[in-house]
Formats: sequence, structure tokens, C-alpha cells
Amino acid sequence: MNESPGVADLLGVLAYAELSAFTRMTEDAATLAPTLADRTALCELAVAEYQHFRLLYDRLRELGADPERAMQPFAGALDAWHTQTSPADWLQALVKAYVGVGIALDFYREAARRLDPSIVELVDEVLTDEGRAEFAVERVRAGVAADPAVSGRLALWARRLVGEALSQGQRVAAERPELALMLVESGANDQAEISRLFAKLTEQHGKRMAALGI
Amino acid sequence: MNESPGVADLLGVLAYAELSAFTRMTEDAATLAPTLADRTALCELAVAEYQHFRLLYDRLRELGADPERAMQPFAGALDAWHTQTSPADWLQALVKAYVGVGIALDFYREAARRLDPSIVELVDEVLTDEGRAEFAVERVRAGVAADPAVSGRLALWARRLVGEALSQGQRVAAERPELALMLVESGANDQAEISRLFAKLTEQHGKRMAALGI
Repeated sequence: MNESPGVADLLGVLAYAELSAFTRMTEDAATLAPTLADRTALCELAVAEYQHFRLLYDRLRELGADPERAMQPFAGALDAWHTQTSPADWLQALVKAYVGVGIALDFYREAARRLDPSIVELVDEVLTDEGRAEFAVERVRAGVAADPAVSGRLALWARRLVGEALSQGQRVAAERPELALMLVESGANDQAEISRLFAKLTEQHGKRMAALGI
Repeated sequence: MNESPGVADLLGVLAYAELSAFTRMTEDAATLAPTLADRTALCELAVAEYQHFRLLYDRLRELGADPERAMQPFAGALDAWHTQTSPADWLQALVKAYVGVGIALDFYREAARRLDPSIVELVDEVLTDEGRAEFAVERVRAGVAADPAVSGRLALWARRLVGEALSQGQRVAAERPELALMLVESGANDQAEISRLFAKLTEQHGKRMAALGI
């Protein structure tokens, strides 16, 4: 690769995030959706994630990188996140899909602000799918309206999702400092900048929770 | 629907077959693929199955049918097939993908021979993907070359796959006689015609086993 060494890391982590989201959403759709229409809706989202994965995979190849080697260092953290946040029911699955896609999109946007034009283009393509997870909002709000008691339970669940994501994110940032540094303004205090990035992701997460009504 | 009553059944069984194949292949890819490249190859095939599912789903809607209602009667038999044929390793997963896609394509072809032009068009679209499962042939042959002892084991596995498929097929034919009758020349002895159809599917299966070298 001719790019800066962190670019393969960045594309690799996003690629494995999309691939594992595709797998888990497909599984959640099959095991938790109450109807075939619900199952289809979540599968649509899963397949859109797969298409993002393909974009990243092909981009890695174009850059002369080995996509498998680029993804491998992040498989552990992302698989651990999914294992720790395996949804117990359909509403949890929807909240997870919405939260997960949202965090990923924030991450793409941050990356696009710092990086070379090739990433910006790719981000634009991914962002055309931004509205796809909106079906989850509608269904979660309907679920909360039908039984207000689920609201608190789902709020806790969402907090756990983002908490585990930040924890895995810290682990990745520690193991791959180059990747973390690509995402922040380089300055005197890189660790503080990374914390600020995480604070920003958390703030965006709060807005999404408000949208869900939990 | 203005079509003959069996058309929704036919599109429904094919749609659920594609949806469940998509789900199971995605799961097998995540749990059994030895490398991320292998996982990606099987996911590609899974997503192609999903795209066939969407064609069938949209076609059902266009015909004024409820896709969920059309699929529901076949979910039991198809899920049972998958449960009974859960692959134990990567080569079994590849053989299953190849055999399953092959049986489905034979089924599409038989349906196209008997049915109205709307199905024929859809079948043409599906058949453009006919070569997609070929990667499995190459990998299974390589697996057999590396360890000739697996050949017999995989041959037994393939026999089980088709045996369970015929058994579930008989169950569906008994429960939905209209569907079965759409697929055979109507004649004095419908049961014999259905058996002849199954014999034809089995013959095609034999050719695929020869291609796999097992």
C-alpha cells in the first residue's frame, strides 16, 4: 500500500464491523423476529451492511492490501462486542441494530474528516444508506407505546451496548495506536483527544436514544 | 391474485427456500469457514440467495398476494431440512451450499417449463447466478485431493442432504397437492408423475456429485 499505514487498519476495522454486523443481524432476524415481515426488514438492513463490507473489501484490494490481514486484528474485539451484547428479544435486537449502525456511521464521518479523498468517496456511498435503520425507530417506539415498562429496560440495554462498544474501542485504540491517531487532531495530548472522540460518539448515541423514545 | 391458486404457493415455497438458505449459509460461513476469504465467498453466495428472495417477494406483492402468508406453509418443512442437515465442518457446508442451490435451480427450471411467462422471466433472472456456487466445487475437490478419505464421508453427507430434501418434498407435496400438480404433466396418474419429477431431481443431483468428485 502507498497510503499511510493506518488506512488499511481503518478500512479493515470498518470492513470487519460490517461483516460481523451482517452476520449477527441475519441471525437475530431468523431467531427473534416475531413475523416474516419483521425478519425481512432486518435482513434488508443486514444485506445493506454486507454491501458496505464489499465496498471496503474491494477498496482494500485496490490499495494493494490483503483484506483478510487488514480485518484480522479487529475480529477479536468486534466478536467480543457481539458476544457480550447478544439480544434476548426482538426489541433488543432492533435497538442493537439501530445503535450499532449509528455508531458505525459516526465513525465513518469522523474518518472522512481526517482522511484522504478515497475514504471520503466511500463514506458518501455508505451514507446514502443512512435512513435504512429508521424502520427500527418506528417499531421500538410502537413497542414502548404498547408497554411503557419496556422503556427503562431498553434504555439500560442501550447503555450496555454503548458501554461495551467504548470498552472494546479503548482496547483497539490501545493495541493499534496508529489507527486511533488517524481519527483525532494530532496534538500535545493524544489520549485526551481520543477521549474527546469517544465523548462525541456518546453524545450522538444520546440523540439516537431520544429518537427511540427510551 | 388472478393467477392460478398454486402460483402463490410456488413463489412462496421458493421465497422461503431462498430466505432460509441465506440465513443458514451466513451462519455456516461465520461458524465454519477456516479463513475470512472462505467466509466472504460463502457470504457472497448467501447474499445472492437473498436477492432471489427479494425478486420472489416483490413478485408476490405485484400479484396482490401477502408474501408472509404465501411463505408460511413451507417454513416448517424447510426449517426441518436445515435442522436435520446442519453441517459439522466447512467441507460439509460447501457440499450443502452446492447441493441446495443446485436442487433449487432444478426446481426453478421445472417450474418455468409448466408456468406462466411471469415465472419464466423471474427464473431467467435467477439463472444468471447459476455459476455462483462453482467456487464450492473447486474447494471440495481440493479438500478431497488433500485427504482422499473425506470423499466417502462427503458422499454419504450428500446422500443424506438429498434424502432429507426428498422426504420434506414428499411432505409438502402431500400437504399442498395443488403445488405438486403444477410441477408435473397432468395425467391419469399424478402420484407417478410426482415420483418421476423427484427421480429427475435425483438424477441431476448425481451429476453434481460427479462434478464434486465424491
